[in-house]
Amino acid sequence: MPATSRLLGPAASRLADTVCSIIATDGLDAVTVREVASGAGVSIGAVQHHFPSKDDMLLAAFRHVVDNTEHRVAAVELGTDVRQNLAAILRELLPLDEVRLREAKVYVAFAARAATSAPLAEVQRGMLARITTELADAVASGAEQRGRTLSKAGARREAEMLLAVTDGLTFDAVTSGQQPDGRRLGALLDTYLRRVID
Amino acid sequence: MPATSRLLGPAASRLADTVCSIIATDGLDAVTVREVASGAGVSIGAVQHHFPSKDDMLLAAFRHVVDNTEHRVAAVELGTDVRQNLAAILRELLPLDEVRLREAKVYVAFAARAATSAPLAEVQRGMLARITTELADAVASGAEQRGRTLSKAGARREAEMLLAVTDGLTFDAVTSGQQPDGRRLGALLDTYLRRVID
Repeated sequence: MPATSRLLGPAASRLADTVCSIIATDGLDAVTVREVASGAGVSIGAVQHHFPSKDDMLLAAFRHVVDNTEHRVAAVELGTDVRQNLAAILRELLPLDEVRLREAKVYVAFAARAATSAPLAEVQRGMLARITTELADAVASGAEQRGRTLSKAGARREAEMLLAVTDGLTFDAVTSGQQPDGRRLGALLDTYLRRVID
Repeated sequence: MPATSRLLGPAASRLADTVCSIIATDGLDAVTVREVASGAGVSIGAVQHHFPSKDDMLLAAFRHVVDNTEHRVAAVELGTDVRQNLAAILRELLPLDEVRLREAKVYVAFAARAATSAPLAEVQRGMLARITTELADAVASGAEQRGRTLSKAGARREAEMLLAVTDGLTFDAVTSGQQPDGRRLGALLDTYLRRVID
């Protein structure tokens, strides 16, 4: 994860990274102001200066990890083949290397907590909506390239399923507590994509 | 969720139900021995008698919710049409009514925690393995019914993707913090199933 963020200044960004490291290793329960201060090598007062409450800190860290993911997705170099573009974008969401595994663990932990936290749920909805729109646009161009007609609603349904497959593969891999088999995950994604865009 | 369980006696089963209610409403963080005792109307000592530590209590509650889900899946009446059977089984895993929404929230919360808890991850792996095997068997019979050849590995890949789609739809719905649109989730599942078994 990059040390700087477009959302937070460098100091708060470093604290958010520390929050994410604690979550990736020990889970969301282990996050305390004291642990974050100690992990980032700053005083408890410095943490509280940036994040008055634990909830503020978690919300900032969730936004930070979502922003990092979307930043990586936006940086994917796209070519002319829509299926390859979708494969490249969705691979950024799968736990295919240590960076993405760590991020996926943190993302799943925050998203799960979003089920009972309105501010975290808002961040999650925003991310799902932006990625779904991006995928729907790609699916629509793919259909166009192949001379097919696909309604806007149809492209959206495909996008929701694509994101569900990717999130489900990530969720099942991350929550089983074993090192994910990246080649297998990538191959499953490709099999699915070949069905959507032949 | 039923008041009794095949895993726990009636008293411990009631405590596990209380744990699940707290998680569905306020999240995993809100679970304390005191809250569970108060919610179940028993003494703190009575909770500690059944579950010496909070981790014991969470593990028992996770097993309890997984057992309830699998019990519901096993009770699905199966017919001769494999696609309809798969649709009926996988619908038990989607948050299509209040019971399944509550269960899905609890499941997602526990599974997310399993990413950093070896005992919870073991429960999660067991559930994923059993459901994947069941789905793979159904997919293989579906292929046979239609006179297709499908290798054991091929059926397993289909099963893993089916479970990923279902888990992903559930995850995205539950974590967005809004009432899931059951009809839409069911329709997305059916669209996917028609692609796997035509």
